Amino acid sequence: MVQSKYLTGDSAAINEFLDKFDVFLFDCDGVLWSGDRLFEGTVETLELLRSKGKRVVFVTNNSTKSRQDYQKKLTGMGIPSEVEEIFASAYSSAIYISRILKLPEPRNKVFVLGESGIEQELRTENISFIGGTDPSLRRDITPADFAGLADGSMLDSDVGIVLAGLDFHVNYLKLAMAYQYLRRGAVFLATNLDSTLPMSHTFFPGAGSISVPLVNMTGQKPTALGKPSQAMMDAIEGKFRLDRARTCMVGDRLDTDIQFGIEGGLGGTLAVLTGVSKKEQWEAEDAAFVPAYYVDKLSDLRGASS
Amino acid sequence: MVQSKYLTGDSAAINEFLDKFDVFLFDCDGVLWSGDRLFEGTVETLELLRSKGKRVVFVTNNSTKSRQDYQKKLTGMGIPSEVEEIFASAYSSAIYISRILKLPEPRNKVFVLGESGIEQELRTENISFIGGTDPSLRRDITPADFAGLADGSMLDSDVGIVLAGLDFHVNYLKLAMAYQYLRRGAVFLATNLDSTLPMSHTFFPGAGSISVPLVNMTGQKPTALGKPSQAMMDAIEGKFRLDRARTCMVGDRLDTDIQFGIEGGLGGTLAVLTGVSKKEQWEAEDAAFVPAYYVDKLSDLRGASS
Repeated sequence: MVQSKYLTGDSAAINEFLDKFDVFLFDCDGVLWSGDRLFEGTVETLELLRSKGKRVVFVTNNSTKSRQDYQKKLTGMGIPSEVEEIFASAYSSAIYISRILKLPEPRNKVFVLGESGIEQELRTENISFIGGTDPSLRRDITPADFAGLADGSMLDSDVGIVLAGLDFHVNYLKLAMAYQYLRRGAVFLATNLDSTLPMSHTFFPGAGSISVPLVNMTGQKPTALGKPSQAMMDAIEGKFRLDRARTCMVGDRLDTDIQFGIEGGLGGTLAVLTGVSKKEQWEAEDAAFVPAYYVDKLSDLRGASS
Repeated sequence: MVQSKYLTGDSAAINEFLDKFDVFLFDCDGVLWSGDRLFEGTVETLELLRSKGKRVVFVTNNSTKSRQDYQKKLTGMGIPSEVEEIFASAYSSAIYISRILKLPEPRNKVFVLGESGIEQELRTENISFIGGTDPSLRRDITPADFAGLADGSMLDSDVGIVLAGLDFHVNYLKLAMAYQYLRRGAVFLATNLDSTLPMSHTFFPGAGSISVPLVNMTGQKPTALGKPSQAMMDAIEGKFRLDRARTCMVGDRLDTDIQFGIEGGLGGTLAVLTGVSKKEQWEAEDAAFVPAYYVDKLSDLRGASS
């Protein structure tokens, strides 16, 4: 059985841990903050890592925000950051489409189920798209739509990709359109497959619950571009040219963050106990994913400098 | 291996078949008509059965229509019928809630994801409900909604059931509300689980694609009140006091209609070749459901009277 090493309060072990890595990939909610409450010591811990020359990357499945939007959120939380340190699933999706999928023109347009963050990142990569926040699709389906979708006259024949993220404006018309594009052979992508969105101490429908009707209708599963999908890890590696052996994933969820790091073959994974997963989960006999290290809270890493 | 008996052109076999049953349960689309085209001989075949004293019941998973609505559809197609001969999934759901589930007051209100057909049938059974076609829910979710759903102030504490059918006006707000009711322990029902709605020679999202985000979020599966769920068969049996041994299910789909009849222990099942399933499917070695009888088309049953 794999053991997880507990670092809290052990200065020697923390120093040894920090020396092993050049890059730290951070999940955010549950690690740096919870909801709208910044954890004490978050800023100082990030500063400590930067002062030791470590690269810090914020990795989030949030698909409604572009990197610019997300940086504003970090700033709002009091966390200094650069846009280039942020890797969100909308950006991950844009990178995947433009640099990995590379469909030939003209059939490389994207039909978007999602919000403006996705649109901003697609524009950054010069990817043409329709759908998204288009106000003309924020309405009830009509008899003319049923006919126009059935005979294809309402469809754009250049669409070769359906990208589904979190869409607060999802409706029957957009789902019916996305389905018709998939039926006509479009590639099925999802920013991420989180079934729920944690918010206000409860849950709301997540991006995975926007794409799941399409999975149900087509029997196809989308390629996901968020954690724990390795398509996201590949995109991160491509962008930052990181050495996986010298990279550590930090997160609070075994089945997204820690799985993401382990399946990505990173040099290490660090779990924090300030979020979703509990120590008992990875100490269980049948634990699927065991973090290499864990701390009670992220700021325990500052113990090294004391 | 079970063999399916082919009746087309065999008068003696048809007479023997007809003598075995008192009640015929009919699937409609693909059996009586296709899309908006009535099959030749449908009306005459139904008349033949009625003239022989057979009871005819139209069994449909259509959840957007009440029985009254559906009778208008039958009349519009040129098929004489009585409301009492119609058994649709909205009605099936209302019957299940009022006569089988019977939750104690006051926590027996229904939150509806669906159209007016469901509401009409719930009213017929004196079941109180919210949601459905309520225009105040046909809008975007707001920050106040996130807060009001999280703290429960926007929720009706009398809701003890979530009923999901086909909703052409599905949106994020309604899905978020339904999820909160399920999270608070509401019973999860679905009129039916058809992933798609056949229309205009293609497919659109079906009732099962409206409820599937809730399945994805909660990990719970709803009790379905449409074919092939036996909850629907129980409701039909309760209403018509039929003798299952003397009842035959007629349909075009192996995995809904024929499965429904076989699992219901009916005396027989009759497949027609004018719809979705093909003969090769039940002649396959690994066929899960084999109809007891089949004809090329429903009107071949008239061969008996020639």
